Amino acid sequence: MSKIILSINAGSSSVKISVFLASHGQEPVELAETQVDGLTAPPPRLSYTRAGGRIAKGRDIDKAISSQNDAFQYMLGELINDPGFKEINSREDIPIACHRVVHGGDFDRPQLITRATYNQLEDLTDLAPLHNSSALEIVRFCIKELPKTRNVAVFDSQFHQSIPEHIRTYPINQEIAKKNKLRKYGFHGISYSFITRSVAQFLGKKQDQTNLIILHLGSGASVCAVKKGRSWDTSMGLTPLAGLPGATRSGSLDPSLVFHYATNVGKLSPSSTGSLHISRAEEILNKESGWKSITGTTNFGDIASSDDPDKKLAFEIFVNRISGYVGNYYVSLHGEVDALVFAGGIGEKSDKLRQRVTDDIGCLGFVADKDLNRKPIEDVVQEIGENGARHRTFVCRTNEQFEMARYCAVNEELFNG
Amino acid sequence: MSKIILSINAGSSSVKISVFLASHGQEPVELAETQVDGLTAPPPRLSYTRAGGRIAKGRDIDKAISSQNDAFQYMLGELINDPGFKEINSREDIPIACHRVVHGGDFDRPQLITRATYNQLEDLTDLAPLHNSSALEIVRFCIKELPKTRNVAVFDSQFHQSIPEHIRTYPINQEIAKKNKLRKYGFHGISYSFITRSVAQFLGKKQDQTNLIILHLGSGASVCAVKKGRSWDTSMGLTPLAGLPGATRSGSLDPSLVFHYATNVGKLSPSSTGSLHISRAEEILNKESGWKSITGTTNFGDIASSDDPDKKLAFEIFVNRISGYVGNYYVSLHGEVDALVFAGGIGEKSDKLRQRVTDDIGCLGFVADKDLNRKPIEDVVQEIGENGARHRTFVCRTNEQFEMARYCAVNEELFNG
Repeated sequence: MSKIILSINAGSSSVKISVFLASHGQEPVELAETQVDGLTAPPPRLSYTRAGGRIAKGRDIDKAISSQNDAFQYMLGELINDPGFKEINSREDIPIACHRVVHGGDFDRPQLITRATYNQLEDLTDLAPLHNSSALEIVRFCIKELPKTRNVAVFDSQFHQSIPEHIRTYPINQEIAKKNKLRKYGFHGISYSFITRSVAQFLGKKQDQTNLIILHLGSGASVCAVKKGRSWDTSMGLTPLAGLPGATRSGSLDPSLVFHYATNVGKLSPSSTGSLHISRAEEILNKESGWKSITGTTNFGDIASSDDPDKKLAFEIFVNRISGYVGNYYVSLHGEVDALVFAGGIGEKSDKLRQRVTDDIGCLGFVADKDLNRKPIEDVVQEIGENGARHRTFVCRTNEQFEMARYCAVNEELFNG
Repeated sequence: MSKIILSINAGSSSVKISVFLASHGQEPVELAETQVDGLTAPPPRLSYTRAGGRIAKGRDIDKAISSQNDAFQYMLGELINDPGFKEINSREDIPIACHRVVHGGDFDRPQLITRATYNQLEDLTDLAPLHNSSALEIVRFCIKELPKTRNVAVFDSQFHQSIPEHIRTYPINQEIAKKNKLRKYGFHGISYSFITRSVAQFLGKKQDQTNLIILHLGSGASVCAVKKGRSWDTSMGLTPLAGLPGATRSGSLDPSLVFHYATNVGKLSPSSTGSLHISRAEEILNKESGWKSITGTTNFGDIASSDDPDKKLAFEIFVNRISGYVGNYYVSLHGEVDALVFAGGIGEKSDKLRQRVTDDIGCLGFVADKDLNRKPIEDVVQEIGENGARHRTFVCRTNEQFEMARYCAVNEELFNG
């Protein structure tokens, strides 16, 4: 029996819902996709596409939308009330809703959300208040208002459970590390899972024989070393703050820096609530840093194409940090790398960034073909590497919502309850 | 005219003084070397060697020694009162004292300590209270009690002034970064300067044509990429905390980690004083982490030779982080690397660490010769790389005190005032 699966992806300034039709053990088929963005830069805007065409593209929303959960409810209403979209006519028509949850702690696979798992998710929010709380608000709404729906949490960290102990362990007091669950977790794992399978298929290799260096580059950016189809190392850490800089995120820097940045950085930020504890330091490093702090814009396309010295500096910083991780992970994989893969909004769109990075790491044997690299990216996996180069180079159009629905479709327990 | 130069190197638990005789423009010649260690693990112990032999080796000191300055004064007394050491018979016999100062801010060369430079050094202490304060205490003593002596500050950061903007800049609010002087500085530069010159000489190359990856591995550990004889990148940052783990130092980790480690980490530590501000976080990450926090010991030789699971874990963590930096800097130098150089106490002594690191990075073309690597390190620069390997591998016995004295000897202003 085929079922509707909603994949819900709540980001910091947007929420996406993709609607899939899936049969157990089959690849899900997308029926509709809708998104509200601009949550941090009002007015919020709706986009909505389904069979039959594009219904809205960045249409201003005149209702008050102040949270990810508001945006979710608004889109749910649009789907239910759209006379041209027959598959969902009421809240009862959604057997499965799967939620992207950033921080999954020790979970190594998606979880059916029961009372027990919900409590565990609440506990994890303390570790990643900036990242988990809006997804959990939507989960709470669904539990209460969609009683016929089975809720599934899919974690951005679960793909990285395979990272070995000597890589995931921080050299700090181990008793406190264990008690407070302080270790490298890694994120963007839903994307890395999609990319690893897709690239292995493209290469005609078994996934468990495939080694990759994957660059997921968007307003949040990370790198993953994939060894035998599984995560071996990744640049994010306990939280998504570590590793590469992002649009508003500093990435790794001297851990003592923030204490020289402002006073009282350990205090709770005014944006904390009774249940949500965010230190001023975490807010500075996650929300007030990154390339926006150098250039004034979060728009990387603008940065990449500008001659403004600040924008050039931000671009070169990003290239330098990315190239460094490629060198690091190349060594960690002992040079046995089937391909370097660019993904994420910037990885897909910025041929200039791809060219600069491959120029920088040419000594490892990754070489972009200038013509292939300039072509629009239309395939799921598209080759941009020079014919005859020592290692291959690809772009992959990742699809987190598809991957989330796929987890639910291939798993008997998640699909049939 | 030849002059006596004292090189004073105050570390966290020890102080070393080396006495040199130097003529302007000549390499200094060492006359004596003395050290007090055990400052953080009493009783303090004296070692003292000069022409005529070893006078003391780890001899318990029964006087109260509670600071680096106490240790300095004690050794100064030993030198003056030693009837077998004719070169220093009173406090007036020391024309030049050069002091290793860890954090030199924007200084790109050694500084004669005048009232103005002394004030600048005091200002820098705020940026590196854990590292600069004991050296400054000795400087103050010398200014007051050795009025005939010219004091020179040599900075561990000065070698890294050549790091380019896109590498030294942190992607944080640039106004605050400039105001608070927040950028990558880098340390161990006195050692990197000695090693770069020594290895270039060994290779028979001009220093400004020499590219190296240098590993300075001791209880504080860092990596430096040297491009055309100058620092291009290094693993330490705003302070020595960033980069590799050390004996009690975490190295780089998720910058938000410390806020999940304990509460109130932004508060001043009880070990702060009126003029010295050390946050609890900086104390945790600098003093209560590193391989001691995993194994209970700071003795790396013990860790490297043990089968205890915690010690093996600490060893593998260190190897993994070192290898990652070699990959990173190999790419940053575009593969144009004349040699990989091991240095520092661990770099000199642990053939096991050298073997594991070179095994790990073999794909880059650095290969240790098993026999050469096992030989005792007796030369200033000693080859351990396999004949015919793509890149060469050396061990260098670095000598910071010599390098400090050399700065004073080659510079007319520092030498003659």
